[in-house]
Amino acid sequence: MFPTYDVIVVGAGHAGCEAAIAAANLGAKVMLATMNMHTIAQMSCNPAMGGVGKGQIVREIDALGGYSGIITDETMVQFRLLNKSKGPAMWSPRAQSDRMAFALNWREKLEAHPNVDFWQEMITGIVVKDGRACGVHTGLGIEIPGKAVVLTNGTFLNGTIHIGEKQFGGGRAGERAATGITAQLQGLGFESGRMKTGTPARLDGRSLDWSKMEEQPGDENPGKFSYTDTPPLVNQMPCHITYTSKEVHETLREGFDRSPMFNGRIRGLGPRYCPSIEDKIDRFAGRDAHQLFVEPEGRNTCEIYVNGFSSSLPEDVQYKALRKIVGFENAKMFRPGYAIEYDFFPPTQLDASLETRLVPRLFFAGQINGTTGYEEAGCQGLIAGTNAALAVQERDPLILKRSEAYIGVLIDDLINKGTKEPYRMFTSRAEYRILLRQDDADLRLSPIAAKLGVRNMEGRMARVEEKKSAVDAIHRELKNHSVTPDQLNDFLERTGNTPLKQGVKLLTVLTRPGISLPALAEAVPALNDFIAAYDAETINLAEVTLKYEGYIEREKAAVDKMSRLEGIKLHSDFDYHAISSLSMEARQKLSELKPRTIGQASRISGVSPADVSVLLVHLGR
Amino acid sequence: MFPTYDVIVVGAGHAGCEAAIAAANLGAKVMLATMNMHTIAQMSCNPAMGGVGKGQIVREIDALGGYSGIITDETMVQFRLLNKSKGPAMWSPRAQSDRMAFALNWREKLEAHPNVDFWQEMITGIVVKDGRACGVHTGLGIEIPGKAVVLTNGTFLNGTIHIGEKQFGGGRAGERAATGITAQLQGLGFESGRMKTGTPARLDGRSLDWSKMEEQPGDENPGKFSYTDTPPLVNQMPCHITYTSKEVHETLREGFDRSPMFNGRIRGLGPRYCPSIEDKIDRFAGRDAHQLFVEPEGRNTCEIYVNGFSSSLPEDVQYKALRKIVGFENAKMFRPGYAIEYDFFPPTQLDASLETRLVPRLFFAGQINGTTGYEEAGCQGLIAGTNAALAVQERDPLILKRSEAYIGVLIDDLINKGTKEPYRMFTSRAEYRILLRQDDADLRLSPIAAKLGVRNMEGRMARVEEKKSAVDAIHRELKNHSVTPDQLNDFLERTGNTPLKQGVKLLTVLTRPGISLPALAEAVPALNDFIAAYDAETINLAEVTLKYEGYIEREKAAVDKMSRLEGIKLHSDFDYHAISSLSMEARQKLSELKPRTIGQASRISGVSPADVSVLLVHLGR
Repeated sequence: MFPTYDVIVVGAGHAGCEAAIAAANLGAKVMLATMNMHTIAQMSCNPAMGGVGKGQIVREIDALGGYSGIITDETMVQFRLLNKSKGPAMWSPRAQSDRMAFALNWREKLEAHPNVDFWQEMITGIVVKDGRACGVHTGLGIEIPGKAVVLTNGTFLNGTIHIGEKQFGGGRAGERAATGITAQLQGLGFESGRMKTGTPARLDGRSLDWSKMEEQPGDENPGKFSYTDTPPLVNQMPCHITYTSKEVHETLREGFDRSPMFNGRIRGLGPRYCPSIEDKIDRFAGRDAHQLFVEPEGRNTCEIYVNGFSSSLPEDVQYKALRKIVGFENAKMFRPGYAIEYDFFPPTQLDASLETRLVPRLFFAGQINGTTGYEEAGCQGLIAGTNAALAVQERDPLILKRSEAYIGVLIDDLINKGTKEPYRMFTSRAEYRILLRQDDADLRLSPIAAKLGVRNMEGRMARVEEKKSAVDAIHRELKNHSVTPDQLNDFLERTGNTPLKQGVKLLTVLTRPGISLPALAEAVPALNDFIAAYDAETINLAEVTLKYEGYIEREKAAVDKMSRLEGIKLHSDFDYHAISSLSMEARQKLSELKPRTIGQASRISGVSPADVSVLLVHLGR
Repeated sequence: MFPTYDVIVVGAGHAGCEAAIAAANLGAKVMLATMNMHTIAQMSCNPAMGGVGKGQIVREIDALGGYSGIITDETMVQFRLLNKSKGPAMWSPRAQSDRMAFALNWREKLEAHPNVDFWQEMITGIVVKDGRACGVHTGLGIEIPGKAVVLTNGTFLNGTIHIGEKQFGGGRAGERAATGITAQLQGLGFESGRMKTGTPARLDGRSLDWSKMEEQPGDENPGKFSYTDTPPLVNQMPCHITYTSKEVHETLREGFDRSPMFNGRIRGLGPRYCPSIEDKIDRFAGRDAHQLFVEPEGRNTCEIYVNGFSSSLPEDVQYKALRKIVGFENAKMFRPGYAIEYDFFPPTQLDASLETRLVPRLFFAGQINGTTGYEEAGCQGLIAGTNAALAVQERDPLILKRSEAYIGVLIDDLINKGTKEPYRMFTSRAEYRILLRQDDADLRLSPIAAKLGVRNMEGRMARVEEKKSAVDAIHRELKNHSVTPDQLNDFLERTGNTPLKQGVKLLTVLTRPGISLPALAEAVPALNDFIAAYDAETINLAEVTLKYEGYIEREKAAVDKMSRLEGIKLHSDFDYHAISSLSMEARQKLSELKPRTIGQASRISGVSPADVSVLLVHLGR
C-alpha cells in the first residue's frame, strides 16, 4: 500500500514537523505519520515561541532552513526582544502566537511540500530487520516501509494525565496516549524512564477583569524570527500580568494532600524551570506572590492561558485559588490544568546525529529525549530529519559544534550528560554565548545548510553575503571616518560622555560604553547618510560585532583550543577499563557513554581534567 | 465551581452548537460541554451543507435565527442550486464548505455570545432529581447543575469504529468514544439501539489526475443560505466527478469476506440513502459503475473527500480499489474509510418539543435520535435548545407543523414513526412541499422566531416585511399592466409560444409554462424598469408564488383540513385498550406512542383511517 519512504517521521508536533520538512528539503521522500492531521503542530502548552535561550534556537532553526521561525512570524500576535538591557549575547526574541493559526500554517506548509506524504493513525511499533530500522507498524497492522525512522512522540508514549486524585491515559487533554513503542524499544535493549510536565487551566477571557491587571504590550518596533522576507507584525495584542497572593497559596495548600505531586502518585520528574504552582509554593515557601502572565490564545478566541499557574491539583482547588487572584474574581474555566507523565529514553543512548546507537537508522527527537520546550523539540527534529535523510543518502551527518549553535550545545549536553529531568535551554548552558547571538545565526549556519544542499537556500545565501558586505562597509566607514571635537563634543556632553580632546576615528567613539551607532549617527550627518542605506538588523550587527570584538576574539581562541580536543577521535571499542590511571568513575562513564572525541569525553560529568590528560597521554599526545 | 445554568448542552457538533446558540438567543445561560474545544462543529463526514431536502432545512434554521446558514455562507467554497430544472418545491441549495473554516467560524460565533460558557471534558451522566434532569456529571466527577439538559452526542455514545477485521472504540477517527450515558439512560427506562454510519477514505489531492475527471463547477451566480447580509461567494472551487468500474467492484468484492458489514460484526443499520460502496455493489449488482464526487476539504489543504466511496472494507482493499478508479491511478490515502456503530434512542420516546417523555427537562437532538446528516442534526438542536430554554422559562414549547417547515416534518416523523435506520430528509417526506420551498422560509418562519423573542430578529423581520411588500408590488404591477399583441408577439414567437390575439394583462402571459419573469421583462421595457428595483430573490419569489398559485392554494386547503384533526387533543392517559372497535395494532401503537393529537395519531403507521374515525366518534366529533 505504501512505497518505501526514505524517512518516516512518527508524530507531527514541533519536532516531527521540522524533521519531516528537513528531510524533505534534502530530497528525501518522507512519510509523516500522525494520529490526526487536524492536530498537526499543536502548541500543547503555552501559545508562545522563543524566550531566553529558546529564541536563539528558533533563529538557528530558521538559519538552517527550518520553518518554526517563518511560521511564528506569519502567525504571531505579539513580539518582544527580551533582555534588551543586557549584553547582546542575552538578547532573546519571544513571540506570542495564535495557536490555531500556527497549527494551520504548519499543516499548509507541510502539505505544500511535494516530498511529504501523510498517514493518520497510531504508530505502534518500529520494523527492525538485520538490526536496522526499516519501517513502522500501525494500529491497523499496516507496515509502512522506510529506510530511516524518526520518533517524535512527545508526551504520547504511555501518557498518563493527572488531575488531583484522578488519573487516566491520554497524550494530551482529549487525545489518546500511544502504546506499543516503549515496550518494543525496551525489548530491543533501550533504557526508558518517566518524566512529567504540566499545563495550567484555560480560562474564559470574557470573565476576567483586565483593568485590574498590568498590561504588557509588545515591542514598539517588533522584530521577527526569520531571516527571510516574512511579513511585519501588525495589530499586536497585549499580554497581562497579575500575581498570586498569600491567600491564593493558602487555598492551593489546602489541596496538597490530594495532589499527585505530593502523594507519590507521579513518579516522573518535572521541568525544574517551569514548575507547577504547587511546586513553587512548596519550594519557595517564603515568597508571598508569584507573577502570572495572562496570555491570549489567539486573535479570534476568548480562551486565555495562565502562564505560571500550571497545576495538577484537584480542579475544585485550582478553581477556588484562581478566583482569589486579582482580576480573576469571576474567572470561568474552560478546562483545569493537569500534569502528564510520559515515557522518555535517556539521550545518552544517542549519537550526536540523534541516531540511536542500538538501532541504526532509528532517530529520536524532542520530548522522547527528555527535553522540554517547542524550540528544543523543533531543533532536534530538524537535526534528526536532516541526519535521517543524510544517512539514507549515505552522507556524513550534520553535527553542530557547541561553538556554532545552541543546537550544538543542546545535543552535546543530551548525549554526553543525559538528563534526569526535562532539559530546557538557557544561555548559561553555552560556554561561547557571545558567539551564539540571535543576531547572526544566519551568518553562522546558513552556509552549512547551503552546503548540505537544503532546498531554497540560494536566496538565503544571497542575503547572508549581502549582510556580510554591508557590515564590512559600515565597519570600514567607522574605521576611516574621522571626527573633530567640534563636530562631536556637543553630543558627547549632552549624553554625559567625556568630550574629545582631538580628532579621532568614529570607531573609537563607538567603542565607548553607552554610545550606540544610531545615536552617534544622529550626531554625525555624514554617518547618518551612510547607514541610511542599511536595515536596522544589519546596523545592529555591525555595531555589536565592533563593540564586542574583544569578547568575540577571546571566545574564538577558546573554541580553537577546544577544537583541538574535539579533533582527537576515540573509538567506540576503546577499552577504558584497561587504563588503570583513569579514575574509577571516569572508566565507568566513558565505557557507558562511549564518547566519540576527547572533547566529548571532557564534558562528561565525572571525567576530570586529570582523566583527560591521562587519555591524551595514552593516545600519544 | 459552576453556577446553575439554564441549559446544559452536551456535545458541540451541529446539533449541540445550534442548541447552545438557540437557548442563548432566548436569554438562557448556557453551558456547552465538549470533549475538546478544538473540535467544535467538525464536519465528521463530507465537507458540504444542504442538498435535496437538506438545503431547505438549512434555510429554515436560518429563518429561525440559527447560525448554520450564516456560517456556511461565510465559509463555503462552492454553491449550487440543485434541481433547477424541476419545480420550485424541489430547488435545493447545496454548498461545499471549507471544513476547518466552518469549524473555526462556529467556535468564534459561540465564544462571541455572552450567554454561552464552555467546559472541555467528557460528560458521563445526567443528574436526575425528583425524576427531572437537573445537571450533568463529568469524567472528573464534577457536577454541573442546570435546569435543563440537551444531549447531542452524535456518534460518540459507545462508538465503535470498524475497518475490515479490526474494530476499536472511538467517537470519530482519532477521537475517543463517550461512555456512561447510555447505561444510565437504560437504567432510567430508556430503550436504546445501535446504528451505524460510515465515511470514505481521505486522499491526497496532489496524487490525483484531475485532467481525467469531469469538472463540476459551482453556479455561475452563486446563491447563499442565509436571508441576512452574508458576503457573496467569490473564488469558487470546482468539485470533480469520476466513476467506479467493473474492475473496481471486483477488487472490492475480493474483500467482502473480511468486511464487518457482511460477516455480521456490524449489527447497527446504516443510512439507506448514503450507503457504503460495498453496500451499493451488493444491492445493485447489475450496475457497472457508480458516480463519485471528488470534493475539496478546503481552500488551504490538499485533502480530498471521495463522496460516494464510504467503506469499512480492509484498508488494503480500499486502497487497491481506489487506485483502479479513473484519475486515482496514483492516489495516496491520508486515512482509510471506516464504519462507526453508536448508540441511539428510538425517538418515539420524545415529545414534539424533543423533550424526553421519561425525564422532563431532558432533551435529545441529532444522531442520538436516529437521524443522519448535519442539517437534520442542526435543526433538531435548534428546536431542542429553544424548547429547553422555553421550558426553563415556563413557556409553551415551539412545535413546528408539518405544513410550516421540513423541521416539522422531520420531528413529527421521528416521534410518531420512529426509525430503525438513520433517518434523512427528502422532499418526498413532506406532503405539503410546495408550501415548504427554500425561497420563502424567512416569510414562513422568521415571524415565529420574532414572536418567541429570539435575539436579533428585528432586522430579519424588517427584511421579511420589505420582501412581502415588494412581492405584492410586483404582483400588482403584473395584474394591472396590459400588453398588446404588437408589444409581445415577437418575443412569444421567438421563444416558441403561441402569439397573443388581443391585449392581456402581463399576469396572463407569465402564468404560461416556459415564460419566466426576467425573460418577460426583457421583452417589456416598462416591466423591466419596474422590477429593476428588486433583487433576484424577491423577483423569483414573486414569480413562483404567481405561477404556482393554484398548487399553493390546493395545499393550503389540505393543510386546513388536517389542522382540524391536529386541533383535537388526546390525553396521554387515554385508555386505547378500552375502545374495542379500534384495531388491535392501533390500540397497541397508540398506547405505546401516546399521540398528543388526532393528527399525530393519524400518521402512526398501523393506525388506519377507520381507526381515526373510531377515535373521532369516541371523542364525540
